[in-house]
Amino acid sequence: MGIWLVGAHGNVALCAVAGARALVRGLLPDEAGLVTAGPEFAGLDLAQVGDLVFGGHEVRAARAAEALGDFDRRNGLFPEGLRRRLGRDLARYDAEVRPGILRGAGPSVRDEASSSARRGPGTAAAAVARIRADLRSFRRRRGLDGVVVVNVASTEPANGPLPACTRSAAAFARALRSGSAERVPASVLYAWAAVEEGMPCVNFTPSPGCGVPAVLERALERGVPVMGRDGKTGETLLKTVLAPMFVARRLRVLSWEGYNMLGNRDGLVLDDPAARRGKVADKDGALRRILRDPETHTRVRIDYVPSLDDWKTAMDFVHFRGFLGARMSLTFTWQGCDSALAAPLVLDLARLADLAHRRGERGSLPWLAPFFKTPLGVEEQDFARQTEMLLAWAAAAVRETKPA
Amino acid sequence: MGIWLVGAHGNVALCAVAGARALVRGLLPDEAGLVTAGPEFAGLDLAQVGDLVFGGHEVRAARAAEALGDFDRRNGLFPEGLRRRLGRDLARYDAEVRPGILRGAGPSVRDEASSSARRGPGTAAAAVARIRADLRSFRRRRGLDGVVVVNVASTEPANGPLPACTRSAAAFARALRSGSAERVPASVLYAWAAVEEGMPCVNFTPSPGCGVPAVLERALERGVPVMGRDGKTGETLLKTVLAPMFVARRLRVLSWEGYNMLGNRDGLVLDDPAARRGKVADKDGALRRILRDPETHTRVRIDYVPSLDDWKTAMDFVHFRGFLGARMSLTFTWQGCDSALAAPLVLDLARLADLAHRRGERGSLPWLAPFFKTPLGVEEQDFARQTEMLLAWAAAAVRETKPA
Amino acid sequence: MGIWLVGAHGNVALCAVAGARALVRGLLPDEAGLVTAGPEFAGLDLAQVGDLVFGGHEVRAARAAEALGDFDRRNGLFPEGLRRRLGRDLARYDAEVRPGILRGAGPSVRDEASSSARRGPGTAAAAVARIRADLRSFRRRRGLDGVVVVNVASTEPANGPLPACTRSAAAFARALRSGSAERVPASVLYAWAAVEEGMPCVNFTPSPGCGVPAVLERALERGVPVMGRDGKTGETLLKTVLAPMFVARRLRVLSWEGYNMLGNRDGLVLDDPAARRGKVADKDGALRRILRDPETHTRVRIDYVPSLDDWKTAMDFVHFRGFLGARMSLTFTWQGCDSALAAPLVLDLARLADLAHRRGERGSLPWLAPFFKTPLGVEEQDFARQTEMLLAWAAAAVRETKPA
Amino acid sequence: MGIWLVGAHGNVALCAVAGARALVRGLLPDEAGLVTAGPEFAGLDLAQVGDLVFGGHEVRAARAAEALGDFDRRNGLFPEGLRRRLGRDLARYDAEVRPGILRGAGPSVRDEASSSARRGPGTAAAAVARIRADLRSFRRRRGLDGVVVVNVASTEPANGPLPACTRSAAAFARALRSGSAERVPASVLYAWAAVEEGMPCVNFTPSPGCGVPAVLERALERGVPVMGRDGKTGETLLKTVLAPMFVARRLRVLSWEGYNMLGNRDGLVLDDPAARRGKVADKDGALRRILRDPETHTRVRIDYVPSLDDWKTAMDFVHFRGFLGARMSLTFTWQGCDSALAAPLVLDLARLADLAHRRGERGSLPWLAPFFKTPLGVEEQDFARQTEMLLAWAAAAVRETKPA
Repeated sequence: MGIWLVGAHGNVALCAVAGARALVRGLLPDEAGLVTAGPEFAGLDLAQVGDLVFGGHEVRAARAAEALGDFDRRNGLFPEGLRRRLGRDLARYDAEVRPGILRGAGPSVRDEASSSARRGPGTAAAAVARIRADLRSFRRRRGLDGVVVVNVASTEPANGPLPACTRSAAAFARALRSGSAERVPASVLYAWAAVEEGMPCVNFTPSPGCGVPAVLERALERGVPVMGRDGKTGETLLKTVLAPMFVARRLRVLSWEGYNMLGNRDGLVLDDPAARRGKVADKDGALRRILRDPETHTRVRIDYVPSLDDWKTAMDFVHFRGFLGARMSLTFTWQGCDSALAAPLVLDLARLADLAHRRGERGSLPWLAPFFKTPLGVEEQDFARQTEMLLAWAAAAVRETKPA
Repeated sequence: MGIWLVGAHGNVALCAVAGARALVRGLLPDEAGLVTAGPEFAGLDLAQVGDLVFGGHEVRAARAAEALGDFDRRNGLFPEGLRRRLGRDLARYDAEVRPGILRGAGPSVRDEASSSARRGPGTAAAAVARIRADLRSFRRRRGLDGVVVVNVASTEPANGPLPACTRSAAAFARALRSGSAERVPASVLYAWAAVEEGMPCVNFTPSPGCGVPAVLERALERGVPVMGRDGKTGETLLKTVLAPMFVARRLRVLSWEGYNMLGNRDGLVLDDPAARRGKVADKDGALRRILRDPETHTRVRIDYVPSLDDWKTAMDFVHFRGFLGARMSLTFTWQGCDSALAAPLVLDLARLADLAHRRGERGSLPWLAPFFKTPLGVEEQDFARQTEMLLAWAAAAVRETKPA
Repeated sequence: MGIWLVGAHGNVALCAVAGARALVRGLLPDEAGLVTAGPEFAGLDLAQVGDLVFGGHEVRAARAAEALGDFDRRNGLFPEGLRRRLGRDLARYDAEVRPGILRGAGPSVRDEASSSARRGPGTAAAAVARIRADLRSFRRRRGLDGVVVVNVASTEPANGPLPACTRSAAAFARALRSGSAERVPASVLYAWAAVEEGMPCVNFTPSPGCGVPAVLERALERGVPVMGRDGKTGETLLKTVLAPMFVARRLRVLSWEGYNMLGNRDGLVLDDPAARRGKVADKDGALRRILRDPETHTRVRIDYVPSLDDWKTAMDFVHFRGFLGARMSLTFTWQGCDSALAAPLVLDLARLADLAHRRGERGSLPWLAPFFKTPLGVEEQDFARQTEMLLAWAAAAVRETKPA
Repeated sequence: MGIWLVGAHGNVALCAVAGARALVRGLLPDEAGLVTAGPEFAGLDLAQVGDLVFGGHEVRAARAAEALGDFDRRNGLFPEGLRRRLGRDLARYDAEVRPGILRGAGPSVRDEASSSARRGPGTAAAAVARIRADLRSFRRRRGLDGVVVVNVASTEPANGPLPACTRSAAAFARALRSGSAERVPASVLYAWAAVEEGMPCVNFTPSPGCGVPAVLERALERGVPVMGRDGKTGETLLKTVLAPMFVARRLRVLSWEGYNMLGNRDGLVLDDPAARRGKVADKDGALRRILRDPETHTRVRIDYVPSLDDWKTAMDFVHFRGFLGARMSLTFTWQGCDSALAAPLVLDLARLADLAHRRGERGSLPWLAPFFKTPLGVEEQDFARQTEMLLAWAAAAVRETKPA
């Protein structure tokens, strides 16, 4: 089975690839962080981690080994000895990386783009054609049964509403042909291309990607599963875990102020207000949909703090009122390595989407809700309930897998 | 319906009584903190808050109005104007308070005991008889359909194992008669008395109370519901909300250090290592049963910090490992008014236990698990799953309530 | 001695007036928070707290007793009984409050202004004349030896540079006469008026006030002490206490991110970016002047969180690098009642400025540096060193006070 | 100049030795954390870091390179490439390490002791003789002008009062001769031996060491400087920085609860209550001597949390009262690499003590106060004031150094 990573040399992709290979080679202490390594998933016919083959698109000129060395200098996790033992695996991965598409990217992404990415295909249709050719070539060359495309590229800025052609599959196909899809951002083109190739597509970012109606519709037509949006790895995870407690106890949240600091490329990209908008909306929406109290004051800030690099730090202040009008507070500080939190979820999602595809599921996969800040087609934001959905799916799938 | 509070002039009892009356008189901003005021319970035949009649046992000599004034000076919540408007309600409550039983109490409780409590009934059997008489008299005098006994007294010190006679109803009844139950602590005597009177009994403290086999067995025989142990209001609530997230994401918790500071009588009583032992075991057990990782290092400290009084502050440090061996951390600080958090749950539990009694339920009530640190007869410690149990019970009860 | 408060019914002014009177009447537990109550100041000829007479300007229509009741409902500190005992003192204070000047005020201040404040004097010169008349009348009517004017009004928005006429006393006097001072904000007019009346002037806010060259020059000419800017009561206090430690230990601060939440009128006014600019600059400048490391990343956010009201909460994250390149962190959370922190400093500053005046000091008073975020004419930002300056002044003044 | 480290293969010693060599070889980003690298010390005739020669005593059998590899696996800071480049330096250091003395060590130190340390010299006098021989041999063999002995060994348990013979130099010399000094712990024997050899001695631990009267007296007789006790690197540093602020503002500290978590050998040793006692007293004493308020409730906990290893985490809660009786709070969390914080101070202290020796200073050096939790012979605990003492000494020394 293949995993095609859009944003192939970004931190999340590198941690996923290098982590998977390190796991297979017995270089990690354990499978911590990998949800699908849990006993609830043991009976499923998931692709083995050792069988995963990686490739991807990348707009920058980079080498995985160097990028990982750079990551380690700033964040640790990949000491020299480990990198050395992964050398051949990383080189093989580099050989499967193709120039990415820049359409709709923000200024900081453009600044670092390679010359081949800058040249780009002339039109949206040409971009789709090239992506599809890259995907097909990867599948054929490596002899893969299935490929899952996962978008882990930088967040695209939200510059106004998306072009109307993204509202239906027919309109989108027409627009591609007629040259009127030129304002469609890359994330949508990747997703469309994946679906057209019959490959499941997962959007781990806040970009529109496979979440637009055109792609969703096409996925249903083609019998391909898709899912997104925006991996839930840190502060929002905590919010969707803690907020239901306040609801269950009928403690009224007066204010929930969330301050997120991060310093990696993601942080740099989000330093642009247009790019930040989508992310903030995702983070805030999850909370508000749980609390459902119009009087609650919420705020999400995402600040670029270069020295933190990949170590995302969130400081949240929750002010709430209980019985007798008592005003109380909860503060928390979360210090996590963003990519180490996200990478195993990328592996989980690819393995689960691949299995769902083989099981004949199509369109959005609501039982993958616990992995996302804004799960496609899912109202439920409570992490515990989302987890029950995932486990119920796994239990059902295990039952169906067992021979009679 | 009557609520009989063991520890009648303690902070929790006072906040429950004064809070209920303030609610009825429209003196509170809203019903925040009262779980049974939620829409999920709207269709149930619960006793109205306005119909609740309060009484209780107390080992100290106290007056509710004065105690509440004292509470307000140290903790706020009951300003003069509010106290004034509750004056008659509080006086009426005082009239229903009887001297409590000191058996098995710790030194700080003994030091403050009234002379009548100190005199006490001569034997355990006499104590049971007196408690029963007090309960019967309350029910009769106030013309109550049902009475629920809730223990909100100070934690009893755990001085070695409980007498063997608490292991079965028959042995206990025999021991009472033969005078060999003299080492049985008051919490058990109260619970036994309640059950013998056919009154549901809830243990909001870490004391043994209605959780000993003798009482549980008798409750089943008599068709009386009982439940405990130890209200889940703060740090343990957070632990049972957050720990499942680490499990669901397979993030390995390396260490979970919990520092609890409190300064009220509860804190003073818990400053005695023997009294603290039970509480620490309850708090730690809930966490360990969720994490199920023998390598996790956990610690619970409960420190007496007089200046905090009822404002319990918990500072927790969670160290965990994720993918790639990344070591990350979560810290939180919870600052809550202990009694304001506990009081509405006392009302909830009494209303629910009363309804369960009328519905014919008997013995421990596992669906009340989310209210307790160590729910009797329940393995599940995950707060979200416990909440599902509660809501499922409520939904079923609503369905049965509706006319065909 | 008189204290004239600009912003007479704001939280800080009310807490200063009511606090001083409560202290005199023996209604407070102690003099906590009042610096000049310390033993180092015992030998000085400071005005007695009991001899302080209060008056002020206010742009809103308000009554002290009601405003204090409102403050108590939202923040505590002034329970009904205390307010009752201060009733006459507060009424007497109200009788000394005059309509304030709106020139240069932000939108939220204008919205709440009383009709008399809205009408206002027609010109800047008329405003100065009216302020002077109010000050003179207060001094004469109450038979005061000295009056100190303290600005505790809402922060004025910084809309571009101040008019050029504020750059010298002569130019300012000319501009007033010629009608070309109409864009000068109220804080400067108050300060100019005070100095012209020979009254010391203290600027507790980030507004320009007595810090403009025109006023400073006039103060030197008239032999009047002035001081400012912006009381140092919370997060900035901590910054100027903690930052010197990093310098002394040569720990390099990589990032210092400060998140300030507050919900009172101050917070509402600061929700306007123009008003916030000055405050943020003051808070950030103090830190940067201590660290003197151009590579340090600093950020100050001030967010309006209505539910907090006067309870200002600051959460700071400090990321620093030590020996061997080790990256470490310090986070702190400060939860303080803003007005209770500021009010005693207002009394301190008035008492000290009055004494300095009597001692013949003029112009800015650098030894008052520890009270301000941006002390006029003082480079030193290190709180400990500023405190040494204050104590050295006090020691010298005590020596001079003692008879030979 | 030589630095002789008692506890030669402990984390602090290793970080000091490897750090100094890495600095000299240009392998560190900068001199962060090294106080004597500051401009205030530039004019002093301090030994160059490149001229420092290291040796020491160690009770375990260890190799520096391996120990450092082990440290890096658990704590980072010494990646493989860095260790490789320090290989020869570390081997040279190992060649200068001699078996240490176990007298008075706690159980966890004994458990890990090497066989040669276990055999030990038969008597206290023999131990002193061997230490002196080791020190002389180091000085002679490496041709050193001066040697400073720094104790960075594990804390010795405080088992009752020290033997009476430690109360004067004469009594101690007598006791050594007569065989009645057998209960004197190793830290004192090392210090005595150093002083007898005319070598300055610094006690970076809470053990008695050079702080006993016998050693202090001998140091004065021999003209040798000594200093201690217990390096101030983390929570206590913050306490002595923050507490003076509360005093300066007359904010009354009601409670100051300090929770220290650490997981290295130091933490393991301190898990023994007897060893912990001294450390807790040092940490608490510094705070209490600043606050001087008998009503302040203070608590210091030191908990062993293995997963943290060298990353010491302190969570402090400060409850204080200000004007109007307002109760406010400050909490902080400090996450520092203990050895990286301590190591540069070891280099600082050795360089400064060596210079003081050459300048003819003898006995305790009060101007080194800012480096210690309990500075010998110094009342002042305020870090800012202690720093002024250090800088004043440096300024004076610079003036004397300059040619006329």
